[in-house]
Amino acid sequence: MSADRIRNAALRAKIMTAREAAALIPKGSNVGMSGFTGAGYPKEVPLALAELMNEAHARGEIFRISVGTGASTAPELDGALAKVDGMEMRLPYQSDPTCRKRINAGEMDYLDIHLSHVAQFVWGGFLGKLDVAIVEVAGIREDGMLIPSSSVGNNKTWLDRADMVIIEVNSWQNSALEGMHDVYYGTQLPPFRKPIAILKPSDRIGETFLNCDPEKIIAVVETDKPDRNSAFSPPDENSRAIAHHIIEFFAHEVKMGRLPKDLLPLQSGVGNVANAVMDELQASPYNNLTAYTEVLQDGMFNLIRSGKMIFASGTALSLSPDAAHEFNRDAALYRDKIVLRPQEISNHPEVIRRLGVIAMNGLIEADIYGNVNSTHIVGSSIMNGIGGSGDFARNAWLSIFMTPSSAKNGAISCIVPMVTHVDHTEHDVQVVVTEQGLADLRGLSPKKRARTIIDNCAHPEFKPALNEYFERALKYSPGQHTPHILDEAFTFLPNWQANRKARDAWSEDGLVQADAWKT
Amino acid sequence: MSADRIRNAALRAKIMTAREAAALIPKGSNVGMSGFTGAGYPKEVPLALAELMNEAHARGEIFRISVGTGASTAPELDGALAKVDGMEMRLPYQSDPTCRKRINAGEMDYLDIHLSHVAQFVWGGFLGKLDVAIVEVAGIREDGMLIPSSSVGNNKTWLDRADMVIIEVNSWQNSALEGMHDVYYGTQLPPFRKPIAILKPSDRIGETFLNCDPEKIIAVVETDKPDRNSAFSPPDENSRAIAHHIIEFFAHEVKMGRLPKDLLPLQSGVGNVANAVMDELQASPYNNLTAYTEVLQDGMFNLIRSGKMIFASGTALSLSPDAAHEFNRDAALYRDKIVLRPQEISNHPEVIRRLGVIAMNGLIEADIYGNVNSTHIVGSSIMNGIGGSGDFARNAWLSIFMTPSSAKNGAISCIVPMVTHVDHTEHDVQVVVTEQGLADLRGLSPKKRARTIIDNCAHPEFKPALNEYFERALKYSPGQHTPHILDEAFTFLPNWQANRKARDAWSEDGLVQADAWKT
Repeated sequence: MSADRIRNAALRAKIMTAREAAALIPKGSNVGMSGFTGAGYPKEVPLALAELMNEAHARGEIFRISVGTGASTAPELDGALAKVDGMEMRLPYQSDPTCRKRINAGEMDYLDIHLSHVAQFVWGGFLGKLDVAIVEVAGIREDGMLIPSSSVGNNKTWLDRADMVIIEVNSWQNSALEGMHDVYYGTQLPPFRKPIAILKPSDRIGETFLNCDPEKIIAVVETDKPDRNSAFSPPDENSRAIAHHIIEFFAHEVKMGRLPKDLLPLQSGVGNVANAVMDELQASPYNNLTAYTEVLQDGMFNLIRSGKMIFASGTALSLSPDAAHEFNRDAALYRDKIVLRPQEISNHPEVIRRLGVIAMNGLIEADIYGNVNSTHIVGSSIMNGIGGSGDFARNAWLSIFMTPSSAKNGAISCIVPMVTHVDHTEHDVQVVVTEQGLADLRGLSPKKRARTIIDNCAHPEFKPALNEYFERALKYSPGQHTPHILDEAFTFLPNWQANRKARDAWSEDGLVQADAWKT
Repeated sequence: MSADRIRNAALRAKIMTAREAAALIPKGSNVGMSGFTGAGYPKEVPLALAELMNEAHARGEIFRISVGTGASTAPELDGALAKVDGMEMRLPYQSDPTCRKRINAGEMDYLDIHLSHVAQFVWGGFLGKLDVAIVEVAGIREDGMLIPSSSVGNNKTWLDRADMVIIEVNSWQNSALEGMHDVYYGTQLPPFRKPIAILKPSDRIGETFLNCDPEKIIAVVETDKPDRNSAFSPPDENSRAIAHHIIEFFAHEVKMGRLPKDLLPLQSGVGNVANAVMDELQASPYNNLTAYTEVLQDGMFNLIRSGKMIFASGTALSLSPDAAHEFNRDAALYRDKIVLRPQEISNHPEVIRRLGVIAMNGLIEADIYGNVNSTHIVGSSIMNGIGGSGDFARNAWLSIFMTPSSAKNGAISCIVPMVTHVDHTEHDVQVVVTEQGLADLRGLSPKKRARTIIDNCAHPEFKPALNEYFERALKYSPGQHTPHILDEAFTFLPNWQANRKARDAWSEDGLVQADAWKT
């Protein structure tokens, strides 16, 4: 495939095996890799590197690196490196089980950074020197410019800042991707920054290629492996109910004149619930939809295919095998309907605020006052990371958080008295939605928020206990702005059983009425 | 004074007493008032309104209103209305003792909103209809345009959106204020928003006046009362130490090439510590300083007077009597060195991010992982509100939070295991400074942040207990990413005595080594 995909002779001369390339990566180095939600990550070199690390560890040597990416990747990157204990530090987002296990065992450092902040932190020198970049591309042009792959992420920054660059050219990626990207080269350090001139999702302000000093490219590796592409489960009843509440809310907002009839650019987080919302939009009365988001999943891709959505801007295409097949068949057709940008632009506060994005993101737990935990289990274990949810929620026109009302087969309430970790503060959460209903928190003081969230969003099984906590807080909290009983704020967790014990104890104390508990 | 300050005849005909004007305000109405940190608030009508409310309440009638402002005001507004129980709801920031008491007693609703969000929420219709605006101005031009006073705040929005407008013309305000403001009339609702074309703090993009449909103006009231202007206490030892650590940090950042030699535009919160930092800059090697901030206090004003600072952009002038005297004497001289803008622009994420502001804000407590509580006492009582700290911290080039390491004469540690309320998440806090030292958290994972904050920032009296909590969490936390023992996270509070009890209990349990406690 070399001549076809690697059209620059000088770079063709640097083709080598993944193992040869991996051997060029120094121990202890800072490495920036491509990859965003299982799209466009390097598929050969990290695996080969893991092998070298394993061999080194077997010899009693330490071989670990620090790894930055766009966002989550795949087993061939995060999984492989975590399995051999090859990562000292990881940023800014991950979702790999082995990786997560190591982080939560205290064996590996993890920096959970807003996705829009990464490039700025790297350029500002806040994260130290970048030694190596490993970036997947769809091809190399005659002039040496790189044709980006299915995600852009932080690739521009990695390529610009790294001392050494390893390129993976992936012939599985559709060559029709060429022209679908918009890589903005106008960023500066302050005080020299200019406005980011995006006034609508389809505006193009950059180049279709990635630029890299060929002198820095130390290796070119060929691959034809597919992106990680797990299928979406069909929307379950809860997801459909959540989606339904959101669409109903849109209709209400349009009627009230608070949203235009074609809505505003949509941002949608990753996962099945987000996908279900897009599915539901397919059957909605809205047309001429646009998206200014991070990731295009199947649901959004289907809206584009059907013509309901006229343009989507993101930083990654994360499609199931079926949708990827569709896309690959007709990629050229989508070139004027999709643009992929660096994540510093897809997630830029300036652009998100200007466009008035409708942000829809998932959560782990929300509390009755509207604080959201997107990252931690019992306040101490990381799940994935905050990702871009903060970039979007804070700057959105409408900031919606969505979740099933309970988790673990109903054992745990996702609505709690006090979240054990805060990623989105009460100041940033406008709407909370569960399958039970939607809580519009705009203009509500904390106590009114509490009543609305409990009434509209809590699972019936947990509603009495939440009401009880709130009523007790109204009675015993030292302050009545945000009533809390700190000693009990977390006792609600982690499960209904523990709470049952608490309620028995409270009843014995005569602090609560036993019959208040009847459900 | 009428002819001089109220140069429009039609509006001069609407002059009436404050009591007559107050009588035009309907019960239960939504009222937007001027005022930002004790500058430019209406000084007559709210007092007269409080009187009317008091009389109504004495007759057994209910007379309450909802009040929005720029930020905090003064006893004549918040104090007077709170004393007569005249406010149903208050937003977006307050600092009045009576007001605070009512909120924390549950007698009054308070909405704690990012200052940059207020205008957007009002224009979006998220907060309901605005009935009345009461706005202080320095004068009225022949053409009916309003000359803004010592703060701009949300005045443009109140004047544009209210059904009825009451103007207070304050002749105490220097008439030389004319020309010092920059009121941007280019904002739009999405999807019609354009870039905010500010590329440096001194850029002017708007008008020097406020525009208001004269038909809507139902009353003009004259006053000559001064702004609330409490003197600053001279910087104490702690404030000077904090300031010293920050200046030293700047020097280090300049040396590392992470800050330009003239620094970047400064934002500085309100209060004595912020003032001390400005004082310390006076003696620093930095020149050509600029500010892109909310409030100009004495310290910043002195930097301008001495020529160390060449330009400051804000939304309010909040000066002590002495500094106000200086300013009033030479106001015309400062017209090309100071600009006052609407707070939707002074606090705009787009501009703050672009300019690369150095944000410096206070806090109530910070936890060992870098989460900051700016608003709540024991998680339930409001102090003042988040103000603009979120607008600046999230979008800044450098986000610095500063506090003495202990409060209440050393009884309470301002560094705690887990904050009881989160206003700034671990993702948004780059630097924490106390008089003990500075913790640079950039690039550090949670556990490294904890060690750095405890080592550099905690008061020696509390350091052992914090270390003990952290060590115990390392041992017993269910997850080791952000080690916490939820049952004990808040027991550290509220004072050393309680913790002493906890440590005795832990020692008896054999869970901690008794000698680990020796200080």
